[in-house]
Amino acid sequence: MVSNHAPMVRATGMSREGGDMHITILGGGGFLGRKLAARLARDGSLRGQAVTGLTLFDITTPQPPTGAAFPVRCLAGDVADAAAVAQAVPADTQVVFQLAAVVSAAAEADFDLGVRVNLLGSLALIDAARRCAVPPRIVFTSSVASFSGSQQAEMPDDARQMPLNSYGAEKAAAELMLQDASRRGMLDAVNIRLPTVIIRPGRPNKAASSFVSAILREPLLGLETPLPVGEDFALWVSSPRVVVEWLLHAAAMDTAPLGTDRGINPPGLTVTVREMLAALSPAERALVKQEPDATVAGIVGGWPARFASARARRLGFQEQVGLPDIVAAFREDDLAATRAERGL
Amino acid sequence: MVSNHAPMVRATGMSREGGDMHITILGGGGFLGRKLAARLARDGSLRGQAVTGLTLFDITTPQPPTGAAFPVRCLAGDVADAAAVAQAVPADTQVVFQLAAVVSAAAEADFDLGVRVNLLGSLALIDAARRCAVPPRIVFTSSVASFSGSQQAEMPDDARQMPLNSYGAEKAAAELMLQDASRRGMLDAVNIRLPTVIIRPGRPNKAASSFVSAILREPLLGLETPLPVGEDFALWVSSPRVVVEWLLHAAAMDTAPLGTDRGINPPGLTVTVREMLAALSPAERALVKQEPDATVAGIVGGWPARFASARARRLGFQEQVGLPDIVAAFREDDLAATRAERGL
Repeated sequence: MVSNHAPMVRATGMSREGGDMHITILGGGGFLGRKLAARLARDGSLRGQAVTGLTLFDITTPQPPTGAAFPVRCLAGDVADAAAVAQAVPADTQVVFQLAAVVSAAAEADFDLGVRVNLLGSLALIDAARRCAVPPRIVFTSSVASFSGSQQAEMPDDARQMPLNSYGAEKAAAELMLQDASRRGMLDAVNIRLPTVIIRPGRPNKAASSFVSAILREPLLGLETPLPVGEDFALWVSSPRVVVEWLLHAAAMDTAPLGTDRGINPPGLTVTVREMLAALSPAERALVKQEPDATVAGIVGGWPARFASARARRLGFQEQVGLPDIVAAFREDDLAATRAERGL
Repeated sequence: MVSNHAPMVRATGMSREGGDMHITILGGGGFLGRKLAARLARDGSLRGQAVTGLTLFDITTPQPPTGAAFPVRCLAGDVADAAAVAQAVPADTQVVFQLAAVVSAAAEADFDLGVRVNLLGSLALIDAARRCAVPPRIVFTSSVASFSGSQQAEMPDDARQMPLNSYGAEKAAAELMLQDASRRGMLDAVNIRLPTVIIRPGRPNKAASSFVSAILREPLLGLETPLPVGEDFALWVSSPRVVVEWLLHAAAMDTAPLGTDRGINPPGLTVTVREMLAALSPAERALVKQEPDATVAGIVGGWPARFASARARRLGFQEQVGLPDIVAAFREDDLAATRAERGL
């Protein structure tokens, strides 16, 4: 193994008992980034160390979480701009959550934008990480969309990534580069292939998977929503709360048992549309209208709905909770804010 | 499927019966590029069409093949420079052989150089291909080094690429991007994972696999050479002649049966060092000196020595010839030139 990592004098300042714990969230203004930042503010610690600084970086200046007992820097910039990323990842950074992404529909619509953010952004992060005093832990959110498989397939832990969309291809390519940089000792990456995250707050969007959250969220808001697939259609899903737990575990875990393979298929949940609808009341369920859409079914039908995830369980990634808890968490965490945001 | 391919007015000029056949070889000055260019000059045609133009592109200006009945442009440039690649791949290009690479030892020694040439070079090629009048066929040489596996493993056709070196990681990432660009209709790629090519002409180099050619070539030149692994050590190899056949087949084949999966594990040959030495005369064999080298054995030992290659056979890729033919071809094609080059 060859290492290009040149140790630098480690930045001090803000040192506390147990050492510095400076954290950066790239994509810190997004839906998961905000939840993660709020959690870090609440916990005040990571890996048993007090957080001594947090940098949030996004394409527009993110809002800091409320109640943080540590300094928070909020930066706006382009994740594919090496200088901007270097500023967001100073030399004393211990952990970087790389959540910045152009999502599937946008990456399909604009190839260049997807390549820049989803692939070149990770190369910029490798550059910044190499300048850190200690190789930082990188928690990279890859995606179920980097795989393909039938509705029936159960993907083994060593399944090949054969993406059917540009977003998945860029994520898989970025994984390869972060994995190689880990082998070389430039950084220490964990690449988590997230399932479809439900229930996303906010509005329906143009993502092919938009309906997966919408068929729960919209009825909970009292709104009608179309269902483009049949009720037997199966999906591999996770909840925002459990995703945050996975991200924190990936930041804190011992990576030695990973060896070369930095990819994690976390233990999501296989659900059918029928099971999702059963989590609603009859009145809510009546708001979901069958509107078959072959295009949407074709795209989402290429994403496997079942993964073995045995390795992730062995490595301590927690099991996804069931649908009733997912719905309850949305009511508790996001329903009021979504109502307010949408003027409902 | 979304296509960003904007058809342009197709360049004319040099048109012949059967249409234009303009070909570019990126890495046209290298060992395989020169052999391929010589073959195209000899054949004068590809896919049953007369070759109407050939561009050779490399980091230093390549030499044109002798006896070509078509115009040959020889360009020097950086394969990661989009403008240089656009010049090398004009809008009327039908076929690009992308052989330009920083090889394994060099990519391991200089991470930035490897990323630039082996990954960003393919992104520059995608840019150039999108500007072509018709999506060009891209024949991309990937490598056995993009896989890892034990000496005993037989790799199935859908084996995951889990590289243990930067060269392999960059090749696998470039494959993903070329495959996605194919799905989008920007180009039409075939990614061939070449086995270790023997017998390379010229001199021993610092590649971990240098010995694989050297233990045949050096004795055939009357020179001593070290053997860093045991005689039972198995390798997945191919000959330059058969590799040229594979490249030509990949340029001419119908890619519709490939579907999404643009990766080809061609039918190479599993050989042990013992079998290789048996292809030499007793006097030649005596020039090979056991000098165990754990570092070399560790690197090359991570490359699988057996692949199923059933899909490639079905798709018409020809079977690798045996060791006696490989040695005979080296004597015929390369021995005199290597002697002259090395002043022997």
